[in-house]
Amino acid sequence: MSVLCSCGGKRTCRGSSLRRVTAPLLLASNRGPVMHVEDETGALVSRRGGGGLVSAVAGASLAGDALWVCAALSEADRRAARSAERGLVAPGVRMLDLDPVTFDRAYNGVANSTLWFVNHLLYDTASSPVFDARSRREWRAYQEYDDAFAEALARAALPGATVLVQDYHLMLTPRQLRERRPDVRIGHFSHTPWAPPEYFSLLPDDVAREVLLGMLGADAVGFHSTRWADAFARCCVEVLGAAYDGQVVSYAGRRTRVSTHPLGVDPVELRERAAAPDVQGRLPGLRDLVGDRQLLLRIDRTELSKNIVRGLEAYRELLRGWPQWRERVVHLAFAYPSRHDLPEYREYTGAVQRVAREVNEEFATEGWLPVHLEVRDDYARSLAAFSLADVLLVNPLRDGMNLVAKEGPVLSEHGLSLVLSRQAGAADELAPWAHLVNPFDVAQTAEALHAALSESTSSRVERTASLAAAATALPPADWLAAQLAALP
Amino acid sequence: MSVLCSCGGKRTCRGSSLRRVTAPLLLASNRGPVMHVEDETGALVSRRGGGGLVSAVAGASLAGDALWVCAALSEADRRAARSAERGLVAPGVRMLDLDPVTFDRAYNGVANSTLWFVNHLLYDTASSPVFDARSRREWRAYQEYDDAFAEALARAALPGATVLVQDYHLMLTPRQLRERRPDVRIGHFSHTPWAPPEYFSLLPDDVAREVLLGMLGADAVGFHSTRWADAFARCCVEVLGAAYDGQVVSYAGRRTRVSTHPLGVDPVELRERAAAPDVQGRLPGLRDLVGDRQLLLRIDRTELSKNIVRGLEAYRELLRGWPQWRERVVHLAFAYPSRHDLPEYREYTGAVQRVAREVNEEFATEGWLPVHLEVRDDYARSLAAFSLADVLLVNPLRDGMNLVAKEGPVLSEHGLSLVLSRQAGAADELAPWAHLVNPFDVAQTAEALHAALSESTSSRVERTASLAAAATALPPADWLAAQLAALP
Repeated sequence: MSVLCSCGGKRTCRGSSLRRVTAPLLLASNRGPVMHVEDETGALVSRRGGGGLVSAVAGASLAGDALWVCAALSEADRRAARSAERGLVAPGVRMLDLDPVTFDRAYNGVANSTLWFVNHLLYDTASSPVFDARSRREWRAYQEYDDAFAEALARAALPGATVLVQDYHLMLTPRQLRERRPDVRIGHFSHTPWAPPEYFSLLPDDVAREVLLGMLGADAVGFHSTRWADAFARCCVEVLGAAYDGQVVSYAGRRTRVSTHPLGVDPVELRERAAAPDVQGRLPGLRDLVGDRQLLLRIDRTELSKNIVRGLEAYRELLRGWPQWRERVVHLAFAYPSRHDLPEYREYTGAVQRVAREVNEEFATEGWLPVHLEVRDDYARSLAAFSLADVLLVNPLRDGMNLVAKEGPVLSEHGLSLVLSRQAGAADELAPWAHLVNPFDVAQTAEALHAALSESTSSRVERTASLAAAATALPPADWLAAQLAALP
Repeated sequence: MSVLCSCGGKRTCRGSSLRRVTAPLLLASNRGPVMHVEDETGALVSRRGGGGLVSAVAGASLAGDALWVCAALSEADRRAARSAERGLVAPGVRMLDLDPVTFDRAYNGVANSTLWFVNHLLYDTASSPVFDARSRREWRAYQEYDDAFAEALARAALPGATVLVQDYHLMLTPRQLRERRPDVRIGHFSHTPWAPPEYFSLLPDDVAREVLLGMLGADAVGFHSTRWADAFARCCVEVLGAAYDGQVVSYAGRRTRVSTHPLGVDPVELRERAAAPDVQGRLPGLRDLVGDRQLLLRIDRTELSKNIVRGLEAYRELLRGWPQWRERVVHLAFAYPSRHDLPEYREYTGAVQRVAREVNEEFATEGWLPVHLEVRDDYARSLAAFSLADVLLVNPLRDGMNLVAKEGPVLSEHGLSLVLSRQAGAADELAPWAHLVNPFDVAQTAEALHAALSESTSSRVERTASLAAAATALPPADWLAAQLAALP
């Protein structure tokens, strides 16, 4: 059994590391490669799942005999999981039917409201977090949720199998699996940033320890940026008293390798997708909307860490401070809804809409609307917009990687200028050809937008080529191979 | 000219380091040792100024020929400064009459809303800080404000003088003074914590650099805790690319010593103050209020970092989880108003009042009000309460030192249990005899309150003696002497 590489010989392939995998491969992630909806008759329909992780891992073209363990995310998913034999909702996909209350507490209460917040430094510390009796119940649900994955993986893994556990939903699973199956090789990959120890220690002492010990159950842990890898290792040193030699964390007789594998995009797949009729069909409407103005584009989930409000404020400062850009720029902001189960996210979407309206009220003229904010998810339109953008704004407060910053340059038709937050993992690779900004500094971001809008076409074309090369250095197949190669 | 020690031979005195000061001494701080109010006729009346720094430095008994440079904080102060010759509002006190708009921008906009927030990790990062055109104006005001101090110090300092600059209001002054007067010896002391580099870098790049370079204009910088000193040095390394050998930061040919001087209390002065009639007069009323119940006490400014809301929530969890304490405890929370020029602080005071009311609504019985919240400043009553407290709760999110944790044990009459945040600088010295808590962990704080309330009198007496000894290890006079001794 092996993982097959999809590179097709088009670039230097690290297939050798893929071929090392001779024992079966198992993947584990909260969201799997399929999801279910009910059609008008109430029958279940299976669809390809969304989310960056699915694209990344599905892009790595797993052979059909690998097993992907994921969670049922909806009532339709749960119905599908219950009706499929042993939860196998699709070939090689096992969906876990977890109690909805446990799932909600683990997913919303802990993963998205606690672990996400701490590693993105998102807390309003004067008022949150509050770790009380309710958060203790949520933490027990998270332990249970992760343990259900560990149990499913332990049952499915053949002797000596390799298990790759993904992201902040499953930080305890490596250790829980290790305790059941000392024979398997375990990798963990974090798609988020990691907090410095002073901030990570906001977590209750037992939670902080369990998270780190859970991860150290793996033989190798991976991150998108050396910054996040270093922060993780420093937490192990400060919180657990572990040792770190720059490559391996040692604690209680176990050794865990800490590596950086910055996920890139697959240019062939991405360009093929962008050539599809639904994408091409969006181009004329977008061209009409932009006219002969420059297109300033941003594309994000309405996620607190994406920093959409300050982006709009920077655009306002641009139009105030450099009036020559009035009527010469159209700002398209695609901000598609995310995590609306959490009140902070609903409020944030409201704040985004409010600032966009204020900018339009202050500057709109007959025939020119400065901001077009769209809060619906239209992937085809996003891809079409990438090809037309003159300036791409990616200014997260903190971001594990950020693939928008990588997709834009790959799809750009006539070259673009990238204004990029230095707090995105992607800045590690893209910095030399981007206009880097401190995401909290709206004045600096406005200046960077001015510089980006002022850039010559030749400079854009040249920089975009370099950005695209850097963005495609480690496409999903190679990224997955690198995780496997990092295992002992 | 010299600084005289006030120890009176009562403990080992570091007078030798004081006697080293043979050149004139200058002190600089935002708030000085005197303030002014207008009486009913409109005439100016001079009073001793408030604030921890004033107590600390005034407690060090400066000789009359030292000069203290401070800012006019009110219209009455400004009147006094203008009418006094060269601003000498009292012997040895020069008050700077700054433009009120500049003062407001520097004090509220930068010092209290930016530098305080960043070093206490207080930002609600999804929405603040926003560094825009307004914050640029505020930053220029801060530069100007600090420069006015540097100018006044440069004019007043005799050749080879020693200048001690205090706190986060005056971070740029050391360098500004150094540029004018390379001959003087400059020390800076921070009474706040310091942020780790990942968080300090929220500041605009130029602001972050200027703050660090401003401090490095000093020959020695001091902090209350090695944690804050280390964080400062790491910021110099990460942000400036400076070198740090564990004692000295070297940058651009200059060397700045980084030291820790944990300010303590003067037990003689404190006990004398507590013996005064106004304090003693408060005792009967407090005894009546507490009755035969245990007194759980907290005393803070209504400051976001003091964590009063979570403290009340922990008390609620205590009453829910350990019903045996109902009607057996009275929680006195003295939370006197602070920084009500800032909307966050007004809202926070509202939140404190709301939670206190909720706890009383949930648990009050006939004859027992669980929480007595008082939001007025009554220093005499605070001192009286210290002497009666059974449990003292000090749970800041992050605190440079926290003198409440030190004053309580010194004034305790029959021994108290201290529940103390590990994020207070005071935890460095008091930890062995305190119930340490993670201030974000309300459940853990409730457990600690239960343990503290359950402690035996003999254990309390024993621990309180150890706490008091640790709390008085470096009283103000010795603390000031240590700052002087750290200078080259």
